[in-house]
Amino acid sequence: MLRFELLATSGHARRGRLTLAHGVVETPVFMPVGTYGTVKGVMPRSLEEMGAEIILGNTFHLWLRPGLDELQAFDGLHRFENWRRPILTDSGGFQVWSLGEMRKISEEGVRFASPVNGDKLFLTPEISMQIQTLLGADIVMQFDECTPYESKGQLTTEREARDSMALSLRWAERCRSEFARLENPNALFGIVQGGLFESLREASLEALVAMDLPGYAIGGVSVGEPKAEMQRIVAHTPRLLPAGKPRYLMGVGTPEDLVDGVANGVDMFDCVMPTRNARNGHLFTRFGDLKIRNARHKSDAAPVDASCGCYACAGAGGSGGLSGGFSRAYLHHLDRCGEMLGPMLASVHNLHYYIQLMRELRLALEDGRFEAWRAQFAADRARGV
Amino acid sequence: MLRFELLATSGHARRGRLTLAHGVVETPVFMPVGTYGTVKGVMPRSLEEMGAEIILGNTFHLWLRPGLDELQAFDGLHRFENWRRPILTDSGGFQVWSLGEMRKISEEGVRFASPVNGDKLFLTPEISMQIQTLLGADIVMQFDECTPYESKGQLTTEREARDSMALSLRWAERCRSEFARLENPNALFGIVQGGLFESLREASLEALVAMDLPGYAIGGVSVGEPKAEMQRIVAHTPRLLPAGKPRYLMGVGTPEDLVDGVANGVDMFDCVMPTRNARNGHLFTRFGDLKIRNARHKSDAAPVDASCGCYACAGAGGSGGLSGGFSRAYLHHLDRCGEMLGPMLASVHNLHYYIQLMRELRLALEDGRFEAWRAQFAADRARGV
Repeated sequence: MLRFELLATSGHARRGRLTLAHGVVETPVFMPVGTYGTVKGVMPRSLEEMGAEIILGNTFHLWLRPGLDELQAFDGLHRFENWRRPILTDSGGFQVWSLGEMRKISEEGVRFASPVNGDKLFLTPEISMQIQTLLGADIVMQFDECTPYESKGQLTTEREARDSMALSLRWAERCRSEFARLENPNALFGIVQGGLFESLREASLEALVAMDLPGYAIGGVSVGEPKAEMQRIVAHTPRLLPAGKPRYLMGVGTPEDLVDGVANGVDMFDCVMPTRNARNGHLFTRFGDLKIRNARHKSDAAPVDASCGCYACAGAGGSGGLSGGFSRAYLHHLDRCGEMLGPMLASVHNLHYYIQLMRELRLALEDGRFEAWRAQFAADRARGV
Repeated sequence: MLRFELLATSGHARRGRLTLAHGVVETPVFMPVGTYGTVKGVMPRSLEEMGAEIILGNTFHLWLRPGLDELQAFDGLHRFENWRRPILTDSGGFQVWSLGEMRKISEEGVRFASPVNGDKLFLTPEISMQIQTLLGADIVMQFDECTPYESKGQLTTEREARDSMALSLRWAERCRSEFARLENPNALFGIVQGGLFESLREASLEALVAMDLPGYAIGGVSVGEPKAEMQRIVAHTPRLLPAGKPRYLMGVGTPEDLVDGVANGVDMFDCVMPTRNARNGHLFTRFGDLKIRNARHKSDAAPVDASCGCYACAGAGGSGGLSGGFSRAYLHHLDRCGEMLGPMLASVHNLHYYIQLMRELRLALEDGRFEAWRAQFAADRARGV
């Protein structure tokens, strides 16, 4: 099931509410990425506490490990990873595409060797639907071909982008048929492709809209293109999608990218950046980004962000007086010593920042002050931390 | 400050209460090890939730990183690592001893090169007291020489053990003087040495007892000797220590070692085993140990220990319905994928097991059923999981 209501708008920006089989998701929303059935370095309870309402799982990775037998024994991903709220799974298309020379794409699907054990595998639109149905995702993504920005040093031509986009459309049709045949009660999203060509984006979008799917994603951005190119597509495509359906910008991005996406009509985002950067000591804050490895933090008693309410910055003072609230000096020390608690706290902080950013943004939209909020966001982020 | 009350006894076993500057510690107690100012892989809030009442810090490691300037700026270790309850610090003696050929021991102290940056360093009884005073530990350990079990393939002779023990006694006296000179308001513990020789243990103990220190440790066990040799010393030395003062068996051990230690009159234990083993997929349970990497757990929907109340086994159901409670299959999968959540959950489980074991043991002592409890413990552990 999927129900989507628009609660408020401001220009192209939208404040919405998505109701899925496992619960309600307030939009715009950031969705933490749980590739192998775990958001890296973060306990599910921390995700719930910080207000994560939906997380991702990766079809490709979960297919390889733990494998379908194990996931089926648990009736899918929710019970396996012990997450009660909604889950979105990708189709596996992006991951097999990322295998590069290790995979062979045909009309039928993609052949590749498992990077885990070398097994010969074949992923098709139908198999992707079967796996995602077994996983029990609230939102299932169509199997698509991610059109590259460049290949072997050559920019993708319009012809190549058109062929790729057309293949993804044929695969979308096959996904829709298989999804129906499987009587999957959840929601299938189509993915708009077309590279950096507006005309191809429009052709992709129109054909997908004609399929009347419950939601649409913009794929094939954040794949190595210059930032301005991505911004051009984000300023073009989302607003052309049906107003009454959720719009998901895949794999994006920085805090600025998210705010820009919302301003252009996007409702949903996912990105590994908060957790991956956390593991490298890169922290996002209201007042700009902070590299905890920098020697200037060695003796700094301040928290990462004094305005942040996460466990790393503010502790869990509300919950029975438990301790928390750690200094930059301490996080610097943990990083220097290679202690696990470093990335654990940094991951909690970064995800909390992203989720809190979306929460503030939603409130601004509700109160009709999105543009003022956006200006303050930009000024705060430029201030420096 | 230190106050110690005996609440109940059963044979040599004691149920006590230790009051320190930062709070009360119910004994017998297991103390998680926080070498670099963090119990590896565990958030402080998790430690508090599982009921850890005192944790360790390592003088040697903290001296090297973050260094004394940083720790002084935070008024010591408590505020630096954000832990409000009692802390015990070791003296650094064991760590410099572990450096092997890299260190040179003299009457004055130990010269060694920093394994972090090669700096030439010198650790003496006085410097150890100064560092531990700066750290602000509730319990300060004397600087001692840990008598080895063997050296270059040769068992330590009685003469070598006597010389080493005598050196530790002279260092104990210097520690006591320096501790007093520093007007450290906390508690200094002496460490009984003497290797595997009962007569030397008795000589060490008598000399230390004459110094009238507020607590005593048994050191130099669990340093590579056969288990039976350790058990012989544990059955010999603790009961000879003053009844009214806390007794601490350093660096021990398995759950069975802890119960054996309590039966022989020990009040306090520390060991890296729960966290180190957790990171290697070795889980302790009421019904024996479990290697999560074993393929037989691949599809097992049971938690690690159904009788365990930790977040990994039972979830956080009590705290606002947050999720938790993970299967062996899921933990097996996390381990296989090298996901951080694997050691995070395993560390919470193992520490919770050790702390819960001590809690049950204390209740048994209070209720005068220690021997029956001990028989049940042995039967349960032998059952297999």
